[in-house]
Amino acid sequence: MNAEIITIGDEILIGQIVDTNSAFICKELNKIGVSVYQITSVQDDKEHILKALKEAKANVDIIIMTGGLGPTKDDITKKTLCTYFNDQLIENKEVLQHVEDLFSKYISTPISDLNRKQALVPSKAIVLKNRFGTAPGMWIEKKDKVFISLPGVPYEMRGLINYELLPRLQSKYHCPFILHRTLMTYGLGESAIANRLEKWEESLPAYIKLAYLPNLGKVRLRLSAKGFDKTLIEAKMDELSSELMSLVGDIFVGFEESSSLEAIVGKLLLKKNYTLATAESCTGGTIAEMITSVPGASQYFLGSVVSYNERIKKDVLGVSEKSIKKYSVVSAKVSEEMALGIQKLYGADFAIGVTGNAGPTKDKTDASLGVVFISIATPDKVITEEFNFGQPREKVIQKAAVKSLEMLRNVLLKK
Amino acid sequence: MNAEIITIGDEILIGQIVDTNSAFICKELNKIGVSVYQITSVQDDKEHILKALKEAKANVDIIIMTGGLGPTKDDITKKTLCTYFNDQLIENKEVLQHVEDLFSKYISTPISDLNRKQALVPSKAIVLKNRFGTAPGMWIEKKDKVFISLPGVPYEMRGLINYELLPRLQSKYHCPFILHRTLMTYGLGESAIANRLEKWEESLPAYIKLAYLPNLGKVRLRLSAKGFDKTLIEAKMDELSSELMSLVGDIFVGFEESSSLEAIVGKLLLKKNYTLATAESCTGGTIAEMITSVPGASQYFLGSVVSYNERIKKDVLGVSEKSIKKYSVVSAKVSEEMALGIQKLYGADFAIGVTGNAGPTKDKTDASLGVVFISIATPDKVITEEFNFGQPREKVIQKAAVKSLEMLRNVLLKK
Repeated sequence: MNAEIITIGDEILIGQIVDTNSAFICKELNKIGVSVYQITSVQDDKEHILKALKEAKANVDIIIMTGGLGPTKDDITKKTLCTYFNDQLIENKEVLQHVEDLFSKYISTPISDLNRKQALVPSKAIVLKNRFGTAPGMWIEKKDKVFISLPGVPYEMRGLINYELLPRLQSKYHCPFILHRTLMTYGLGESAIANRLEKWEESLPAYIKLAYLPNLGKVRLRLSAKGFDKTLIEAKMDELSSELMSLVGDIFVGFEESSSLEAIVGKLLLKKNYTLATAESCTGGTIAEMITSVPGASQYFLGSVVSYNERIKKDVLGVSEKSIKKYSVVSAKVSEEMALGIQKLYGADFAIGVTGNAGPTKDKTDASLGVVFISIATPDKVITEEFNFGQPREKVIQKAAVKSLEMLRNVLLKK
Repeated sequence: MNAEIITIGDEILIGQIVDTNSAFICKELNKIGVSVYQITSVQDDKEHILKALKEAKANVDIIIMTGGLGPTKDDITKKTLCTYFNDQLIENKEVLQHVEDLFSKYISTPISDLNRKQALVPSKAIVLKNRFGTAPGMWIEKKDKVFISLPGVPYEMRGLINYELLPRLQSKYHCPFILHRTLMTYGLGESAIANRLEKWEESLPAYIKLAYLPNLGKVRLRLSAKGFDKTLIEAKMDELSSELMSLVGDIFVGFEESSSLEAIVGKLLLKKNYTLATAESCTGGTIAEMITSVPGASQYFLGSVVSYNERIKKDVLGVSEKSIKKYSVVSAKVSEEMALGIQKLYGADFAIGVTGNAGPTKDKTDASLGVVFISIATPDKVITEEFNFGQPREKVIQKAAVKSLEMLRNVLLKK
């Protein structure tokens, strides 16, 4: 089974938004054995959408559209679907009820005719319930093809994919098993690795492909397999990835993790009943924000003190005046005292302390632009590392947040 | 003049990477008057690329490909271009020199035959210099169409677009002028705005389009114009955007280019020399993270206490045991005490206090899932509002953060 994703919206084609929906949909489809043949982004234009539908139908079994389902004039997906399927819009009572419920529960402005129009769907469509918004998803079958239309708002789309689309596709199709495994390497260029792997790569069976993904000094090696015999594929993948690991053992740094770093750290803390707190300066709450994006984080995360000011570092976190004077506020000593300060204040088992110069302009300390100190306080010691993340500001903040979670993970793995 | 972007790579179609290149290219092309008709993401597969080229040629003047230019087996763009143009690869001396220079300067591993192969280009191609990597960009003209091939590594691609591609396109084509202007509004739904603007929208000239972009409590209204008379377009756009501004004056918060809500709040605080601190529960540091994403935030932002735990609310913020017992931890009283607590602890002029149930599961308090209380403490009073943001978790967190900045902005505007 294969699919094409058609994303509809001028905002994509003028570069106003980055299309993150497609990557999510591709990943989720792969998990249930559906390959994505192509992604096509088209304008809010009836003829263009019709053309894309026609072309997609010739290539794939499943066509998934996103966008163009809002209540305003530039939203034309439903009208276009009526033209394509020679159909008309009818009012769906359940959707109308859902829209009215959402308005009475969450929205202070009175419901309008435009809002009620969200309940109009092509008569041939099966409605897919949108738990998080007013625009319904739609599923239309024609001969052996399925056409699906989803709203473009990311969290609404994700809800529809997970709760409605995947279960329906799985019950309709007998899908093959798709497996990817990605090895991360560091320190050797793409072509040097390719030279080394040449013979081995040639010996791979036809149903397993190797791809090279270079970026910023890191090369990811991805093995992809597809077939109906799950046991065979998993066994072969295990065999081949350990072969590959031994071939790149000197530069291998790990498998690309399927779960996020913040989720991994959360699991590690939960397993041993440890608690965590953070003291953040240049990251300004980003670490706390990442940790609390994981549902259930309150079981191990106590909270954070964001100290964007020298006085707060001293008064709330107990960083000593002497250390600031002697080493400056961006220093190993201050990040250490921040970590120990929050650990004590919040009564946490583990703590992160971060101080740095995010930029864009250099502050009055000695540390250069992009320099960040990260400390991890454990029940028995403090570890501190210095980094230079360069510029721009957003990169420094993001890298510092990720690096501090990475350091914490490494410490927790040894506990 | 219009263009199609063809992004090549299985990593896009399995969702391993989000295609950020296309949005960048679209934005840059728009600046020089080139519209993007379509973005098509295809597999590392010769037939698929050939098909995409053929279809694109029928629709647009300029075809821009990214990806598939590395030195390894899965990189097939150059061979495919040879098939498409009935051409062959020849060694380009300048590229070879460039590759050798890069290796001698920055790369410790010895140069290999695979690296030297980067200098092979189709004989019909004009080489575009890649300042940041070994794979050259290529420009091939056929009749009145231009085909451009660029590496997929983002910073290499960006360099080629800005230094090579845009100047060449500008000297080749007489392009129209494209102008977008986006007004940001907060506090009213897409359909309610559309109702209000209906008549005005109908009166727009044909060369100006209005689009609605809703996301998490914020609706962006984008006016787009295209034409050859730059002066006329700019004048008309000024006229229409002030008309639009007056129509949405009560919910208008600024133009997108210049001002996010966090930047607006920052400016208002700075103007009067006020300081700010936040006490965050369910938002988990998101408000602090937004505020500190603005360069220079340290001039007015003192920091935050993220209290993800009842004990921290009491011990650090001074929320009273009595209030928690009587009203529960998710209540107007507690958000008020959080705001006043952080205001006092950090010595801030203004403070935000937020407590709520972000979900996905209901906690032990009486408040339902999605309920959030937000308090703004000013030098002379506290204002508290109750919201129900529904689900999912990420929406509750984002909406609560945006709403609290919106409330703060409204208070500051009256100061």
